[in-house]
Amino acid sequence: MAAACIFCKIIKGDIPSMKIFESDKTFAFLDISPLSKGHALVIPKFHGAKLHDIPDDQLHEILPVAKKIALAVGAEDYNILQNNGRIAHQVVDHAHFHIIPKPNEKEGLSIGWPAEDVDKDKLAKLLEEIKAKM
Amino acid sequence: MAAACIFCKIIKGDIPSMKIFESDKTFAFLDISPLSKGHALVIPKFHGAKLHDIPDDQLHEILPVAKKIALAVGAEDYNILQNNGRIAHQVVDHAHFHIIPKPNEKEGLSIGWPAEDVDKDKLAKLLEEIKAKM
Repeated sequence: MAAACIFCKIIKGDIPSMKIFESDKTFAFLDISPLSKGHALVIPKFHGAKLHDIPDDQLHEILPVAKKIALAVGAEDYNILQNNGRIAHQVVDHAHFHIIPKPNEKEGLSIGWPAEDVDKDKLAKLLEEIKAKM
Repeated sequence: MAAACIFCKIIKGDIPSMKIFESDKTFAFLDISPLSKGHALVIPKFHGAKLHDIPDDQLHEILPVAKKIALAVGAEDYNILQNNGRIAHQVVDHAHFHIIPKPNEKEGLSIGWPAEDVDKDKLAKLLEEIKAKM
């Protein structure tokens, strides 16, 4: 728990939320500024700013809960999004996963996909660097 | 396994990939059309098109592996993204999670956030509908 964190306050109940689900490790609620109908958030109760700050055992339940919510919302098409860092669109510094229904072109998440043309040899070199650190 | 699925073929080794990680349930590899350096994919070996098609026990390891890759890549800022359906930007119909480093404004994922102004009563009603289906 982090005293100044708005999501920790929501978990504690100090700030009201549109709670959908709660277990010992996980909390889920509706986003009150939704991108589309049914836009919800799933968060680990463990306080950490980014994905890599959260212990593995606090992460296991996140996607099963996200899936449960997607099914309950009845979203056929949707995006699961978790942002790390201001430049990556993170606003609250407590790791959170968005479930964003995509009912049509206008509503929901809007994605830009500026794919790069990358040399295969360069990619193979990068792969070795990453594998060495896994 | 789905015979015509390109990701199932990658898992089987019938199509080569820039493999980063493999366990009994999970497979990870570099995206060969990256949005930024280190853009990788984590997939369940279980074949299912969308998140809600994947059994819970096949999902537990996905985020811990994504986290491991983010740390190995050394990404400080990044997005985790999983798209369900063509309209939500899904291209391959085997559920997959993108790890997309966001080193600067230009590279990586570009996000549009068309938030809606929603009536609190409407939201409260929706919450009850969702909770009834959880």
